[in-house]
Amino acid sequence: MRNAVVGIDVGGTNSVFGLVSESGEILGRKSIKTGDYERFEDFVEAASEVVESFRIDFPEIKIVTVGIGAPDANYYNGTIEHAANLKWSGVVPLRRSLEKRLGLPIVTTNDANAAALGEKLFGGAKASDHFVVVTLGTGLGSGFYIDGKILYGKNSFAGEIGHMVLFPEGRVCGCGRRGCAETYVSATGLVRTAVELLSEYMIESSLRDLSLRSITSKKVYDAAVVGDWIALEAFNRTAEYLGQVLVDTVMFSNPDTIFLFGGLANAGDLLLPRLREAFERKSLEMFRGSADIRISQLPEAGAAILGAAALAWEEFHR
Amino acid sequence: MRNAVVGIDVGGTNSVFGLVSESGEILGRKSIKTGDYERFEDFVEAASEVVESFRIDFPEIKIVTVGIGAPDANYYNGTIEHAANLKWSGVVPLRRSLEKRLGLPIVTTNDANAAALGEKLFGGAKASDHFVVVTLGTGLGSGFYIDGKILYGKNSFAGEIGHMVLFPEGRVCGCGRRGCAETYVSATGLVRTAVELLSEYMIESSLRDLSLRSITSKKVYDAAVVGDWIALEAFNRTAEYLGQVLVDTVMFSNPDTIFLFGGLANAGDLLLPRLREAFERKSLEMFRGSADIRISQLPEAGAAILGAAALAWEEFHR
Repeated sequence: MRNAVVGIDVGGTNSVFGLVSESGEILGRKSIKTGDYERFEDFVEAASEVVESFRIDFPEIKIVTVGIGAPDANYYNGTIEHAANLKWSGVVPLRRSLEKRLGLPIVTTNDANAAALGEKLFGGAKASDHFVVVTLGTGLGSGFYIDGKILYGKNSFAGEIGHMVLFPEGRVCGCGRRGCAETYVSATGLVRTAVELLSEYMIESSLRDLSLRSITSKKVYDAAVVGDWIALEAFNRTAEYLGQVLVDTVMFSNPDTIFLFGGLANAGDLLLPRLREAFERKSLEMFRGSADIRISQLPEAGAAILGAAALAWEEFHR
Repeated sequence: MRNAVVGIDVGGTNSVFGLVSESGEILGRKSIKTGDYERFEDFVEAASEVVESFRIDFPEIKIVTVGIGAPDANYYNGTIEHAANLKWSGVVPLRRSLEKRLGLPIVTTNDANAAALGEKLFGGAKASDHFVVVTLGTGLGSGFYIDGKILYGKNSFAGEIGHMVLFPEGRVCGCGRRGCAETYVSATGLVRTAVELLSEYMIESSLRDLSLRSITSKKVYDAAVVGDWIALEAFNRTAEYLGQVLVDTVMFSNPDTIFLFGGLANAGDLLLPRLREAFERKSLEMFRGSADIRISQLPEAGAAILGAAALAWEEFHR
């Protein structure tokens, strides 16, 4: 029997499961729709069935630990607490429920900390002791690996840059407040910026043919690629907003590298040149040139899985 | 011979020197006006003369290390880099210059990190592994002691909350940008808020009798104590601004306690009740009630000296 771990990335839209070897090879992969499970108990059951299906599909492999990256997951007590982008309100006992159901050691952390551990073990941060991973998905998250370790804090909730207030009195956020960074810098933030631009300007745009409900970040990307001015400007503004977020992030943590991770990070030239320029322009003098902005070096489709798996391997070897 | 260290707090206005025993007793204390020394070399000479005067005044004591807390001081290489509130521009070799002149081990860090170490060794944070010290002086600084150690980062510049952008397009800052937190939350920020209120309202205020140049944070405090509405409102707004800064600080670092340190922290009831209320009101749900806001427990006049001395003792025992 060979050892492997299961890495689970619980996202606002999908939860992705991977069976991962110690060298970071993804042996199997499955996913379920997080949004389909109104009740947390049903999600636990569905997730457990996926893990058990790996046991059946890979009889020669022994699953030793399950690592889970989830929004607002507490590293110390294994709960998900008040996650703004999940349907389950309050505090849900993720680790305890799955441990009871599966009889396996479970370890949890927020998805962004998992991403940072993945970058350290399997990605572009192997040589760095001071880096930040910024996750650009449905929401905006961050994991800080500073002074040679993940920054956790009292309840393991350090690093919530998605809810930094970027604009006082700005856009309404799922958290109930206004102006949070993730209402601007995320897949949904990009769409909101595009819609705002459609109201601000009367310039022609193919996005005007779509119902507002059907405009996605992918549709904005596709329009930008073929030169749609509104879509291109939506990316420009997103680069400016993210630049400001990174300026504050660097002032807090003084890293040598910032890795961008998740959907928006793949926009490439639509985002990166303007982002790097905005970051330098907005930086405090002492931080200019101090941090490289790079794309996550984890293989695109498996990055979140590898992050959760890195957490599991770290726990297994503890 | 008894061992002692010299702790030096280099501030924008004054530099304060203390001869400090291992138990935190301040045996001797002197100060010079930082602003009087246009050339860095002249400051080094003046500072060295103060340290040597301690040797003469206390012949029974052996000075083993000098610890220096200074704005934008680099822990790793002993320089002060681009300090916005000091007259010396660029990078100045603080440790090397003083080591050469005094023949003593010198250790430097920014004043806020020194304050955090002081709080840990001699103050109210002896039992905490996750706390932040926020320094409210001429500027606004912060030292993060999280997961059982000072958060340094690549160049030891982690924790520069003074230059977080609180209001995009806000007040002009000494760093050349706009809207930085310290233009609102600091002794000078309080004065700027009072002056803004004097222009915003026509309400009578004793501050209207003063030239703008002569309005100091102390004058605003004195006016508030006797019920001047403009002065009271300046403290209310400062509490709101600081509340927002602390909300973001807690999201970054998830501490159990925030210690306020320096001039403004002594405003007591003019600041604290409103600050605590604003902090809870503005907090993300998951962080409500998660951090106590307290005043530094270091003896008032010696706090900055004790911080620098704590750094020196830590270095001496390394």
